[in-house]
Amino acid sequence: MQMNMIELIQKKKRGLEMTPTEIDWLVAGVTDGSLPDYQLSAWLMAVCFNGMTDAETLELTMAMARSGDIVDLSDLPGVKGDKHSTGGVGDKTTLIVAPVCAACGVTMAKMSGRGLGHTGGTVDKLEAIPGFTTSLDAGRFFEVVEKTGLCVVGQSGNLTPADKKLYALRDVTATVESLPLIASSIMSKKLAAGADCIVLDVKTGSGAFMKTTEDAIALARAMVDIGNGAGRTCAALVTDMERPLGLGIGNSLEVCEAVEVLRGGGPEDLREVSIALASALLRLAARREPGSFPSGVEESEAAVKKAISSGAAFDRLREMVRAQGGDDGALTDTSKLPRARSVYTVVSPSDGYIYSMDTERVGMASVLLGAGRLTQNDRIDHSTGIVLARKTGDSVSKGEVIAWLHTSDEDRAKRVETEFLKALTILRERPEDRPLLFGIVE
Amino acid sequence: MQMNMIELIQKKKRGLEMTPTEIDWLVAGVTDGSLPDYQLSAWLMAVCFNGMTDAETLELTMAMARSGDIVDLSDLPGVKGDKHSTGGVGDKTTLIVAPVCAACGVTMAKMSGRGLGHTGGTVDKLEAIPGFTTSLDAGRFFEVVEKTGLCVVGQSGNLTPADKKLYALRDVTATVESLPLIASSIMSKKLAAGADCIVLDVKTGSGAFMKTTEDAIALARAMVDIGNGAGRTCAALVTDMERPLGLGIGNSLEVCEAVEVLRGGGPEDLREVSIALASALLRLAARREPGSFPSGVEESEAAVKKAISSGAAFDRLREMVRAQGGDDGALTDTSKLPRARSVYTVVSPSDGYIYSMDTERVGMASVLLGAGRLTQNDRIDHSTGIVLARKTGDSVSKGEVIAWLHTSDEDRAKRVETEFLKALTILRERPEDRPLLFGIVE
Repeated sequence: MQMNMIELIQKKKRGLEMTPTEIDWLVAGVTDGSLPDYQLSAWLMAVCFNGMTDAETLELTMAMARSGDIVDLSDLPGVKGDKHSTGGVGDKTTLIVAPVCAACGVTMAKMSGRGLGHTGGTVDKLEAIPGFTTSLDAGRFFEVVEKTGLCVVGQSGNLTPADKKLYALRDVTATVESLPLIASSIMSKKLAAGADCIVLDVKTGSGAFMKTTEDAIALARAMVDIGNGAGRTCAALVTDMERPLGLGIGNSLEVCEAVEVLRGGGPEDLREVSIALASALLRLAARREPGSFPSGVEESEAAVKKAISSGAAFDRLREMVRAQGGDDGALTDTSKLPRARSVYTVVSPSDGYIYSMDTERVGMASVLLGAGRLTQNDRIDHSTGIVLARKTGDSVSKGEVIAWLHTSDEDRAKRVETEFLKALTILRERPEDRPLLFGIVE
Repeated sequence: MQMNMIELIQKKKRGLEMTPTEIDWLVAGVTDGSLPDYQLSAWLMAVCFNGMTDAETLELTMAMARSGDIVDLSDLPGVKGDKHSTGGVGDKTTLIVAPVCAACGVTMAKMSGRGLGHTGGTVDKLEAIPGFTTSLDAGRFFEVVEKTGLCVVGQSGNLTPADKKLYALRDVTATVESLPLIASSIMSKKLAAGADCIVLDVKTGSGAFMKTTEDAIALARAMVDIGNGAGRTCAALVTDMERPLGLGIGNSLEVCEAVEVLRGGGPEDLREVSIALASALLRLAARREPGSFPSGVEESEAAVKKAISSGAAFDRLREMVRAQGGDDGALTDTSKLPRARSVYTVVSPSDGYIYSMDTERVGMASVLLGAGRLTQNDRIDHSTGIVLARKTGDSVSKGEVIAWLHTSDEDRAKRVETEFLKALTILRERPEDRPLLFGIVE
């Protein structure tokens, strides 16, 4: 056994392609703990330098997906859809896309994650709704989906244990940054979650894991190829995270903003990205079950807009909230959501334009307010967060409000104000426009 | 602590230069066991890809040398010399160079290693002499050196524990092959062994660790730079290991051949390499203590030849053998050395020239006879080995003897004959001449 692993490390070090059997053996050794960490980390570092071929990446992903439970959604009716974001600041699109697609006939039986670091998580956002639970057993999960076409739960069971172990090792050996390792880690979880169609939102910019658009496109390509190679129907949008998405950052605040969009309002950028993601997922469903869903871009966008304007999508969200034990009245009367006792204003220190925002830093400012967590064991305060009054490209005058900090802690507000202002670059010059959608990879 | 190591791995992964403080911290963490193997192996693999600067390599070497005991030879008189070979087949030059240099006035207080795999070790060879011990305590070691100017012992004490740990980890993580790691591993042991002047013999060819001459020269350069950078006086010869050195392979057989050279005879190639190494060490001593040693190439070679022809060098070896408990009569009456009960001939299967020898394979054939070990715990049989009748470039006729196998085991002789013949390529064409000495790096 030992000898084989040395040979596999050597092979990867020399840039040779591993066979599917070799990759399966390696993942089995990760899963059962028989391969020592020191050999795995040497192999991971060699992967960071020499990459993996498409065939290797696909096999690694599938082997990790198979390493634990695989959610079987085949008993549910219709096309099963899933949506995944690589993580950003103010990204509440799942709260919009999932009910919209459900209203359009896609079965949305979805697992979501919690936030860590500067990025938020859908499960945390939903838990801002009083009574709402994301911990359902399998039976109840299927019941809710059958009734409402929509259910969002936290990850449970023994999903992708090989990925969990490898990720933990990558985290402490500086081997996180590797395109095939990132792509296979994300996609192994998506494959195990069981959906037929998966729309991916790959963020790019200062608030994203992928800082450059080239890297984001490459990751999108790799993930879509894996998904399609594994027999699922996938597409990825590459979208902007050089600034937060929408205006609200923090759990209650983001639920409010998602509801605004579902009720026909809300910030334009959030609305646009949500419509693009939802319509892309409808087109994937059309490829899976031709005739049941709109297959053209205009048609699918029209269907999404109608699901919003008719109130059908918002109704789906309300039904889901009720089915998962939540107070759906809080979606219309947002005073029922957790709210911070005070709101502090942040004013512009000078005249000019917001030339850029270090979006990761803005996200970390919201974490400082209690809206996110630095380690997995931190508790979050759903009431806190930041609402932006101005974003990149907007003109500002000295003394004018550029953001509101929602917190009950004045000392913390002062520290966060300082941090928040450090994230901004205000210049006389107006920045060039930057696209919101960089493209779609299919 | 943990955070720092992740940053150091990241730094090396990105190809940045580590500071001396960072390297010292890392080596301290290796020595005290506080750094986990999985982080070290990721770092080692990053070094394999991105290399190390000269400054990093020097610091790593010195830190590993300092990680345990450092032999203090300063109480001994004169210039202290050392000689190291990167390992080969039939390489018994230490048995010649050490007494020659001692006869020429260099203090040779030397530690040597045991053989592993296809390469032999000086300690094993000396132990073929009845009664000879390489395990002396420090006091006796110094006594022998003071009396005879010459003592060769096995490694003892806690020398370079950091190198031992890193080497063991490299061995199981496919990170052995890295020029700065190889150079620093060898040189840390040389620095800890305490000599002022070090002559290195870097082998190149099919029986060497460095298969190509370019790699051998690069390793020679790196090691000499480290030695000189650490305040020692170093030079390296790059010499051929595309064929075994001399004709005898195996412990008793090699002692006999070394004695032949010290008595003015022996195979020409062995004589030539030994003279080159010994005279290079004399010139290093001359740089250390001008006036006391010959400093020119011709002068130093003449001094070496005189030490041989006068019998002074052989006398030194006899004195050392006596001082270390051995029967020096066995050096003149070699029937007193362990001898195999039988000698089997290997004959040429065809007419032509020996076009090439896979020298590593020839070495492994001698290991099969019991002359070497595959793992550190294997016992060796000093009586066994191979004596070559023909080497690369020699013409052979079908049925003519090309080698003798010394062993008491007929079955084993048959298997080794097959293995030995597989190592040879016999063609009608005569191979091009290949140099014995590729150059000297100072």
